[in-house]
Amino acid sequence: MPVNLSAPDATSLLPVAGVTLGVAEANIRTAGRKDVMVMQLAEGTHVSGVFTQNRFCAAPVTICKKHLTASSDIRALLVNTGFANAGTGEAGYQHAIQSCEALASLLNIDSQQVLPFSTGVILEPLPVDKIIAGLPAAIANQQAGQWRDAAEAIMTTDTIPKAASRQITIDGRIITITGMSKGSGMIHPNMATMLAYVATDAHISKTALDAVLEYAVNQSFNCISVDGDTSTNDSFMLVATNQAGHAEITEDSAGFAALRDAITEIAVELAQAIVRDGEGATKFITVQVEAGQDQTECRKVAYAIARSPLVKTAFFASDPNLGRILAAVGYAGIDDLDVNNIALYLGDVLVSEGGGLAASYQEAQGQAVMDASEILVRVVLNRGQAQSTVWTCDFSYDYVKINADYRS
Amino acid sequence: MPVNLSAPDATSLLPVAGVTLGVAEANIRTAGRKDVMVMQLAEGTHVSGVFTQNRFCAAPVTICKKHLTASSDIRALLVNTGFANAGTGEAGYQHAIQSCEALASLLNIDSQQVLPFSTGVILEPLPVDKIIAGLPAAIANQQAGQWRDAAEAIMTTDTIPKAASRQITIDGRIITITGMSKGSGMIHPNMATMLAYVATDAHISKTALDAVLEYAVNQSFNCISVDGDTSTNDSFMLVATNQAGHAEITEDSAGFAALRDAITEIAVELAQAIVRDGEGATKFITVQVEAGQDQTECRKVAYAIARSPLVKTAFFASDPNLGRILAAVGYAGIDDLDVNNIALYLGDVLVSEGGGLAASYQEAQGQAVMDASEILVRVVLNRGQAQSTVWTCDFSYDYVKINADYRS
Repeated sequence: MPVNLSAPDATSLLPVAGVTLGVAEANIRTAGRKDVMVMQLAEGTHVSGVFTQNRFCAAPVTICKKHLTASSDIRALLVNTGFANAGTGEAGYQHAIQSCEALASLLNIDSQQVLPFSTGVILEPLPVDKIIAGLPAAIANQQAGQWRDAAEAIMTTDTIPKAASRQITIDGRIITITGMSKGSGMIHPNMATMLAYVATDAHISKTALDAVLEYAVNQSFNCISVDGDTSTNDSFMLVATNQAGHAEITEDSAGFAALRDAITEIAVELAQAIVRDGEGATKFITVQVEAGQDQTECRKVAYAIARSPLVKTAFFASDPNLGRILAAVGYAGIDDLDVNNIALYLGDVLVSEGGGLAASYQEAQGQAVMDASEILVRVVLNRGQAQSTVWTCDFSYDYVKINADYRS
Repeated sequence: MPVNLSAPDATSLLPVAGVTLGVAEANIRTAGRKDVMVMQLAEGTHVSGVFTQNRFCAAPVTICKKHLTASSDIRALLVNTGFANAGTGEAGYQHAIQSCEALASLLNIDSQQVLPFSTGVILEPLPVDKIIAGLPAAIANQQAGQWRDAAEAIMTTDTIPKAASRQITIDGRIITITGMSKGSGMIHPNMATMLAYVATDAHISKTALDAVLEYAVNQSFNCISVDGDTSTNDSFMLVATNQAGHAEITEDSAGFAALRDAITEIAVELAQAIVRDGEGATKFITVQVEAGQDQTECRKVAYAIARSPLVKTAFFASDPNLGRILAAVGYAGIDDLDVNNIALYLGDVLVSEGGGLAASYQEAQGQAVMDASEILVRVVLNRGQAQSTVWTCDFSYDYVKINADYRS
């Protein structure tokens, strides 16, 4: 059960001019489920992307990077679920190429204008024939508005599809932004997340779009962790179809900040959705580290807390065993940290200061915060002005169950 | 149930001349269990120690470091279980001092000749009055040979006491080494482990003893992980009573290597015992990373695998979902790693090479290795001569259960 998150209503997901989506059931891993998704993009669309830093990155990630360099005119994204096509060597690379060629041929474009994505089990061969066989149905199914079906077709251990929309007005023109994401385990993104796609019809220069991408990903997908495992397939793609009919936005435009912030809002919502639907999650936890010397040390502390199995199991049990949080702060890797200056808050409740329990703290207060499904942990380092926020979930029996059972 | 580890037979644990041990039931946290341990040391004993790098280190750790600097004549170690006296601020510091003073007064020594240790729940006040009240009984109980009772008195979530003995002959004299350890969760030592004590009657210079300590800890307690959490209280103490009657051993002595290796053997056995009794463990996993450029990168890779919740849950399920191991190798932080050169073995079975599944690999072979309770994972980086080994356990329902229930 996701934490305070339900599947988006299909009508709440706004079509983006220049984007059509089609899905198919290709029997890739499981019969009777949507498992292939094709996103077609109108001519003139800009695409920016960031990908996993994992050295064992998947074949499709390698090809995406290559195609984004080779072509400034990406016209289709192809996603399959079931198999990650990672740890598949040269054969996996050829399979990804074949899938791009097959889609390009059906759409009458160049194969370098296709970006391939895969998600699922690592180290097993991609059943590329099934994917190719499913493409005609996915193309026949193309519609502008079916973001919800598309979000469903890219799920793995996700329990619900994740997608969101916003509209803003720039130069008197309504701009639409719609995005979707998937991911539930192997979530500890480094420069990107499992899979996320955000599209807008805004008219924006490629340079400005790249800047928005970097800004948005650092505020969203780079701030989440489910289990501390960085995936082989993480990809976040930002698509601008340039069809909204206003003057081109550059980094100097008046509208740039508004567009950047709206896209970032969608990215944050999609990133948080991954955590809310984290494998086995029963709580959504915001870890906010404040008053650090720089953002790097704040992130170190926030991630030490967010990754600690001891902290995460205590949250699962709603047990205010808060010394575990201090222990994580202590091993986060800040050598000159003076623990006597640190304040720890659970929600609004001051738990610890001066290196020990706060005199005012009463366990009943901590218990009340722990009992809720949304929990804020605040660590005030009192040594600077920087801050960082990370979102994570708890660690439950179901996390073990899901990951012990996932493949078999 | 610990993995292939049973409680040591009391008679197998050899007394060390110059060391006596006494335990008491002081009702510190739970009635009717041994929870205070006093180790008395003969005059002329050398003591070397390493402690946690956690910045939120416990009050007793701070005092141990201070006393080891102030006094070269440590005469007693005092250990309590139930409360860690970490995250307890100035009051905790005073409590630890008071316990040293009380023991010193009973033994007619200086309080700086006492080293205090605590283990248990963090952030709750140490019931120092109960500890002090238990000291006379622990002193009355002093005997040379009761390492097993002592090992029991320092347990927390441990399911069995952990201790081991060795004898070697140097200069025609028999030298005895006996040690004990405790720890089961919050185990990811950095320079030391939860609590471990090794004593020998060898006659060895303090400098040489320090060298042995550093060598032994790097081969043992610094090579294990249960959950990736570095404790606030980790301490490893090496005690030499100098009573074996041979000439003093220095780093240049013929006997130095033999003594160092025997002590290291005990340390490795005690460190592995902590993993075998890791919270919820059902498998004992050796991760061996070979042919790296240096030991640091080998350790990074080994720990990435050993810490990965996805890898650890797959081991729990005996599921050869081995792509998760490659993913962990990929995010371990070696920027110029060429994954096409890596070989992955499970036991003797070649699983992956050339970036994908080995042509010879058959799942039945991998399954057979995974079904065993002792599993060797070998990663051959093929880029140098260095190697590193880390021991870890799997991640089971019981890990979650133990840590969700521990405090309440």
